[in-house]
Amino acid sequence: MELTETAAHPSISFETSPDVYRHWRLEIQGEVARLVWDVKEGQPLRPGYVLKLNSYDLGVDIELHDAVQRLRFEHPEVRAVAIVSGKDRVFSAGANIHMLASSSHAFKVNFCKFTNETRLSIEEACARSGQRYLAACNGVTAGGGYELALACDEILLVDDGNSAVSLPEVPLLGVLPGTGGLTRLVDKRRVRRDHADIFCTTAEGVKGRRARDWGLVDDIAPKSRFEDLVRERLSRLAAGSPQKSGPGVVLPRLNARVGAADLAYSLLRVAIDRKNRTATLHLKGPEGPPPTDAAALRRQGSEAWMLRLFRELDDAICRLRFNEEEIGLWILNSEGDPDLVSAHDSALASFSPTDWFAREIILMAARTLRRLDITARSLFALVEPGSCFAGCLLEAALACDRSYALDDRGRPLSLGLTPLNFGALPMAHGMTRLETRFQSRPEALRALLERVQGGERPRFDAREAAEAGLVTVAADEIDYEDEVRVAVEERTSLSPDALTGMEASLRFPGAESMPTKIFARLSAWQNWIFQRPNATGDHGALKCYGKPSRPVFDWRRT
Amino acid sequence: MELTETAAHPSISFETSPDVYRHWRLEIQGEVARLVWDVKEGQPLRPGYVLKLNSYDLGVDIELHDAVQRLRFEHPEVRAVAIVSGKDRVFSAGANIHMLASSSHAFKVNFCKFTNETRLSIEEACARSGQRYLAACNGVTAGGGYELALACDEILLVDDGNSAVSLPEVPLLGVLPGTGGLTRLVDKRRVRRDHADIFCTTAEGVKGRRARDWGLVDDIAPKSRFEDLVRERLSRLAAGSPQKSGPGVVLPRLNARVGAADLAYSLLRVAIDRKNRTATLHLKGPEGPPPTDAAALRRQGSEAWMLRLFRELDDAICRLRFNEEEIGLWILNSEGDPDLVSAHDSALASFSPTDWFAREIILMAARTLRRLDITARSLFALVEPGSCFAGCLLEAALACDRSYALDDRGRPLSLGLTPLNFGALPMAHGMTRLETRFQSRPEALRALLERVQGGERPRFDAREAAEAGLVTVAADEIDYEDEVRVAVEERTSLSPDALTGMEASLRFPGAESMPTKIFARLSAWQNWIFQRPNATGDHGALKCYGKPSRPVFDWRRT
Repeated sequence: MELTETAAHPSISFETSPDVYRHWRLEIQGEVARLVWDVKEGQPLRPGYVLKLNSYDLGVDIELHDAVQRLRFEHPEVRAVAIVSGKDRVFSAGANIHMLASSSHAFKVNFCKFTNETRLSIEEACARSGQRYLAACNGVTAGGGYELALACDEILLVDDGNSAVSLPEVPLLGVLPGTGGLTRLVDKRRVRRDHADIFCTTAEGVKGRRARDWGLVDDIAPKSRFEDLVRERLSRLAAGSPQKSGPGVVLPRLNARVGAADLAYSLLRVAIDRKNRTATLHLKGPEGPPPTDAAALRRQGSEAWMLRLFRELDDAICRLRFNEEEIGLWILNSEGDPDLVSAHDSALASFSPTDWFAREIILMAARTLRRLDITARSLFALVEPGSCFAGCLLEAALACDRSYALDDRGRPLSLGLTPLNFGALPMAHGMTRLETRFQSRPEALRALLERVQGGERPRFDAREAAEAGLVTVAADEIDYEDEVRVAVEERTSLSPDALTGMEASLRFPGAESMPTKIFARLSAWQNWIFQRPNATGDHGALKCYGKPSRPVFDWRRT
Repeated sequence: MELTETAAHPSISFETSPDVYRHWRLEIQGEVARLVWDVKEGQPLRPGYVLKLNSYDLGVDIELHDAVQRLRFEHPEVRAVAIVSGKDRVFSAGANIHMLASSSHAFKVNFCKFTNETRLSIEEACARSGQRYLAACNGVTAGGGYELALACDEILLVDDGNSAVSLPEVPLLGVLPGTGGLTRLVDKRRVRRDHADIFCTTAEGVKGRRARDWGLVDDIAPKSRFEDLVRERLSRLAAGSPQKSGPGVVLPRLNARVGAADLAYSLLRVAIDRKNRTATLHLKGPEGPPPTDAAALRRQGSEAWMLRLFRELDDAICRLRFNEEEIGLWILNSEGDPDLVSAHDSALASFSPTDWFAREIILMAARTLRRLDITARSLFALVEPGSCFAGCLLEAALACDRSYALDDRGRPLSLGLTPLNFGALPMAHGMTRLETRFQSRPEALRALLERVQGGERPRFDAREAAEAGLVTVAADEIDYEDEVRVAVEERTSLSPDALTGMEASLRFPGAESMPTKIFARLSAWQNWIFQRPNATGDHGALKCYGKPSRPVFDWRRT
């Protein structure tokens, strides 16, 4: 990734590829891969800190995210991946403390969100893409380093009397492990909570047999046998994973054109209105019919409409989150033929049971929509004539806090349902956006599902969509513009923090899952702690770390 | 409740009774009751704000909590309760803003926690005690006023073209509704999330038919028919509730003796060590055998061991939370005969299927233990010879972050399991503490359950308890004292905020429920927002409320 300057401030890019990785090496060896991290101390994302001991910053994680994504698309032959360190006796010292201590609150929170999304993409690759991950902890495995290990299917630790896994954030820094560590300990690995309590308050961590007995790691081996153990476990993981056929699909760079107030891709254009602090995301539907079979889809490769669109949307979400902090309201609209969207959706849904590439495209779209769900920005959808909010694009509208449809009898619009609306694009808590929306009317949702299962692709004009509960407001051409203008003005006048908390609470009714616990619970606590003088005040633990002075705490408990 | 001065600061008491209520009247009319709130403007808990328009502070809520508790124990004949306003055209303006704006962060957070616990006790009375609640919203129902209504089984709103329900916190104050409102809207009442979004950002709220159509209230009636509607719905709720036999049990005052460094009850003594910032809670087991049948239990009334102990513990938890903010570690120990605890547990468990009083005692113990679970203090249990950590008292030890058992062969100790450990005292997320602890070994838990179901009361000495996973550490008499001392010193040296976030994350693995969403997710966001300059800074919305100046926001989203 590179830093490019805009008029306003340095802008972070999320595009990278293995040929330009600075901190990782991706080594493919038949059906197994090694993802080697060997972080370059002197190449932080921005000047001001040194990435010692495989500590990481956003730049390191952007490469990791890219590698996980490319393994899924470009290397379908890979069935197991070992994350290994390129450094002797050090797996990772975790997120770089000096980077955190010198970052703005908003950056810290978005950094944790992005790294959490990367860890979840690893877990999804294990669960859904037949690529199992193993962490080969050859030495110090601290903080975010251990949290990365926790995201893998298996954790192996060298037993050399010295190497420990640890989450030293609470005792050393006065903050929480910010990448899901606490939740994964007790929820994913089912470590007993009192053991977890001791582990998380012991700066030096836990090593050897105790680490295994407490379930902190899956196996241990002395240094002399560690490499054998890694190889053996990796082969076993690979053998248990499904095989996929055919060559991979290379993901070329998206090459967004970044202007002072816009961001342009081939199927997405983002227009930023700095005065009103809004961004409008124009999503383009497909221009032609879908491929007729999986082979034709494979020939389209990275140019397949849905893959291209959601890769662009994913990139735009990350850029807007980090580079446009003050743009508090994102307005989504779309342009195209809803019949074509529906046809593309239906085609991919029909290929996906037997074609890994179709499946990966849908999984990628689902990850992007989940990124949208947990973005700390208000989201409005404008559904207007000429739009194509069907299927996967309807999901983007359903992810919004509100939607406004223009009910112009002279220029009718059309929303549509496709098979992808009924399970393939789930939210982080496992429910579909329609299930979330129809909580109080499950029978109405069942009726819609039956129509789709019967081969129908139900369509709704503005009024019908409002009656069915698919849009928030349908307004006629006399009222629409005013209604939207007032709603936008009101929204952008409200406290950004209160909106963030409110949206996080209203967007995920019903079920909970490990990811929603991480994003909405653990992260909320961490956000709180990051604001507290005990962590980030002049005498706070995070600020004092590495300095001779000891932190000074306000002992009042809340 | 009264304010009593200690050497250090004014101390809040949580004891009250209907004869001295200032803000509520409890009117019993056969099988229905009316709980009338008519808040005295000039009687805030501390000077500095005026309780206009049925706005409330902790003093108002302590009385409400007391009334809900007394209705369960003292008025078993009551099957439905209407919360009605004593003021014309005003139900409630919500939590008092000036009180909030002038309170410390720790107080605000603990205030919200206590009011949330009171709302949950109303919902538990509806679900478990056959006392259904109805909110008769006769006028303005704003913020915390509407959140109280949300805790009731039914919400009725007068339809006078004017009266609205509202959650104006986000638009007016830049904070969240702090008493579970957001969660109850979408999780309990299943209000559609885009409707909830509009509702929560519209300061004036929603009235009349729209309030009913969106599910914000259950029914509406014009002013002329409102009283009839309330009466009719209340009768219907009463008719659907089970009848309970026999007279109620009066709850006398506990009359804690409050010293400068201790708090003494009949079955509980709290010793505060201000230098080390710890409090030791000594819990006393029963001195005699349990009552032989439900009639004998009824004769014991409020003196029944379990009721008395848990009432005292509940009172102590509340006092320590509010009055001893710097006391960061609570150490639990117990004294008594575990066989007697086991006998009392077994007796109550056997009476409870047919006796409401036994059931209410167990429910009360469960609520108190849940209050312990979500207390933002570190909790250690010390299991030593002479202790009686069996059954309901073992639950208190299991609620702790860690437990240390002294393994002294000369003076063996004994932990024990009773039927109450297997479902009657659930945590807020619905799982038992043993289920939470045995997540990774459900088969071991099943084996213990089978022994208890077979009539056995399994007992464990220190070593056996450690092996079974019931205590964290068993140490012999040579090591025990040092081990505990070091653990206490280390714990009390850590950042209080980081510990709060860590403990909230580790204590509730597994399932989630509406209450845990409220406490761990909604509250965490609120805590964060309360710290943000956009809310509580000099130009924050909460600070500017009611003043001529408009808030000034930092627009950066996180």
